[in-house]
Amino acid sequence: MDYEAFFGSALTGLHREGRYRVFTDLERQAGRFPYATHHSPGGVREVTVWCSNDYLGMGQHPSVLRAMHEAIDRCGAGAGGTRNISGTNHYHVLLEQELADLHEKEAALIFSSGYVSNWAALGTLASKLPGCVVFSDEGNHASMIEGIRSSRAERQIFRHNDPEDLNRKLGLIEPGRAKLVAFESVYSMDGDIAPIDEICDVAEAHGALTYLDEVHAVGLYGARGGGISERMGIAHRLDVIEGTLGKAFAVHGGYITGSEQLCDFVRSFASGFIFTTSLPPAVAAGAAASIRHLKASSAERARHQERVARVRQALDAAAIPTLANHSHIVPVMVCDPVLCKAISDSLLDEFGIYVQPINYPTVPRGTERLRITPSPLHSNADIDHLVDALSTIWRRIGLSKAAAE
Amino acid sequence: MDYEAFFGSALTGLHREGRYRVFTDLERQAGRFPYATHHSPGGVREVTVWCSNDYLGMGQHPSVLRAMHEAIDRCGAGAGGTRNISGTNHYHVLLEQELADLHEKEAALIFSSGYVSNWAALGTLASKLPGCVVFSDEGNHASMIEGIRSSRAERQIFRHNDPEDLNRKLGLIEPGRAKLVAFESVYSMDGDIAPIDEICDVAEAHGALTYLDEVHAVGLYGARGGGISERMGIAHRLDVIEGTLGKAFAVHGGYITGSEQLCDFVRSFASGFIFTTSLPPAVAAGAAASIRHLKASSAERARHQERVARVRQALDAAAIPTLANHSHIVPVMVCDPVLCKAISDSLLDEFGIYVQPINYPTVPRGTERLRITPSPLHSNADIDHLVDALSTIWRRIGLSKAAAE
Repeated sequence: MDYEAFFGSALTGLHREGRYRVFTDLERQAGRFPYATHHSPGGVREVTVWCSNDYLGMGQHPSVLRAMHEAIDRCGAGAGGTRNISGTNHYHVLLEQELADLHEKEAALIFSSGYVSNWAALGTLASKLPGCVVFSDEGNHASMIEGIRSSRAERQIFRHNDPEDLNRKLGLIEPGRAKLVAFESVYSMDGDIAPIDEICDVAEAHGALTYLDEVHAVGLYGARGGGISERMGIAHRLDVIEGTLGKAFAVHGGYITGSEQLCDFVRSFASGFIFTTSLPPAVAAGAAASIRHLKASSAERARHQERVARVRQALDAAAIPTLANHSHIVPVMVCDPVLCKAISDSLLDEFGIYVQPINYPTVPRGTERLRITPSPLHSNADIDHLVDALSTIWRRIGLSKAAAE
Repeated sequence: MDYEAFFGSALTGLHREGRYRVFTDLERQAGRFPYATHHSPGGVREVTVWCSNDYLGMGQHPSVLRAMHEAIDRCGAGAGGTRNISGTNHYHVLLEQELADLHEKEAALIFSSGYVSNWAALGTLASKLPGCVVFSDEGNHASMIEGIRSSRAERQIFRHNDPEDLNRKLGLIEPGRAKLVAFESVYSMDGDIAPIDEICDVAEAHGALTYLDEVHAVGLYGARGGGISERMGIAHRLDVIEGTLGKAFAVHGGYITGSEQLCDFVRSFASGFIFTTSLPPAVAAGAAASIRHLKASSAERARHQERVARVRQALDAAAIPTLANHSHIVPVMVCDPVLCKAISDSLLDEFGIYVQPINYPTVPRGTERLRITPSPLHSNADIDHLVDALSTIWRRIGLSKAAAE
């Protein structure tokens, strides 16, 4: 067959649907977040980033950068092997202790990324627990879906954030079987928050393991940054709390925390953990420094929430349509893929504002949006500039709040 | 069900089989490779590492460390997002150009790890190419197997490094169907090298795509470190050359290279590429510096080969049984899991030499080994100490060359 023709025609299809992705080539400026240098065929210029998942700006924090520099000077660039074959560095051991402490669990295990932690941990648990049925929230992230899919375990999708539907579905399965309930605390694209306590009630009643993805919450919620489960005081009710080192902690990598035996089990059987080079020592050192800082300091979290509220107020005052939620994620609803991309292009080209358009398959068709993530580092002037720019564009293209409804 | 009891009993099974993994807690010493600090309950002491996949010691090269330091100062710790949502940093773009050039391809795409690059690229190609049949060498790495498995495409396993068997199996499939031949250049555990040219002959005759994993060869072979395919002058015959940034290049991450359209296709459809935070700018910068250095300098490769030959000669002279091959990997065959672990423990405890035992499932049962990886940084004294230690242990436990045969 003609492979090149096949690839070409698939790519043409993406262009036609308005969902071909063009990556924005940026250089973040340490010490000057949220500003970045944008490289494009038209030249190089400064932009304000409004869609980073470095939610608190910890990626430029002096203690994080210092820890990374020190680890490079001390241990070099990479880990040099898998965890088992010369690639366990002392920084990995210290990071896992820091993470277990963060979520008040016996143990932790780090992975190449949050994606890999979900894929490998869910895949391993669901495939190895005999006769396991997985109950997966319909809004779960691609990494969880892939992990569950790769396990080939029986899978039940329950309605998004709906403990009653979960309860009904759990009730249909034989009581003695292994069951695993997988869900998230803060959903990335809508920014809504799960009723973790009610889901735990239901799971406990049916003897199911609970697996909570807190990637969009760790560092951001709870007195020590342990996520929504810490804020609700129910971390101990979750069998697994999974998180990332690449968003609020602003470095790279993912992890699970849980009981000593559960983590040891995943460590011992997960292909995606065993057969891969471990994280660079400097990445582990930087992540540990970031976690330590956010355990002790709530200033970034307080300022973050204040900035989010201010952005929401300003958008409301300007009648820019947003999706309501109780998190730090501000979805500005456009509900059309081509228009969404056009608005993003205008923001970048005319106003020096970078907000990536979010289209299918990241969100359902018809719910295309600009996903705005205010940080503690966005000034009042930055916020005014963003809202003025959106208002100008909104007026020009005749969008109204109604368009999103 | 009692989940903790299940985990406990699975772990007990591993202990019983002698294949429970205990990670060795190390601090590599930049500037003093191959020496490292070993942390253990008994205290802290210096050891010589003989099993690192930082094959050339580039993990302490000044140009690599300088590039990482500079990128941290310039851009901060992490990338802050997925490639599509604020996480494409200019260092990623430069690294992909460096990689495409390395393998003389139109384009390259970087991933969180070599594992993820194989899993995501093979999974995407095999699942999306209509009616695809994958032909997989029986010795392929876990990441390739997982990728092929997750694609749910029809799969044919061909005999290890056997173009004739591949030819026979390809001949049984309808000519018009999509076909993908996946194999490695240097196999990690045996160190044997594939007949890449013959496999390409067969694949071309049957109109199959070729996917070559060069993770244990990039940086190490070829005039510019392009791997075995460069050394053989046949890089252009491979549709995909996959590699890692975490072994000879000594940093972290994985990649594929291929045609513009093939890379764009994987970029656009691979879940494991799309929905994950991109590599830290400093990791991309360090990897690019390492690749650039090894394109221009063959001194490390020459010294590496010389050291490998010297280790092999010394082991032969001492009648320590090794597996013959034409690569840089020196498998010392023990062929018993418990003995293999005991020898490794003696080397560490008595002689300050760290070589991890390699047991099932990394190698087939009955072929347990010490996988020794000489580097340009191991001195004559280091080699003498290693071979003396092995000889002492071999005499003590009465092993003979015959034991491995």
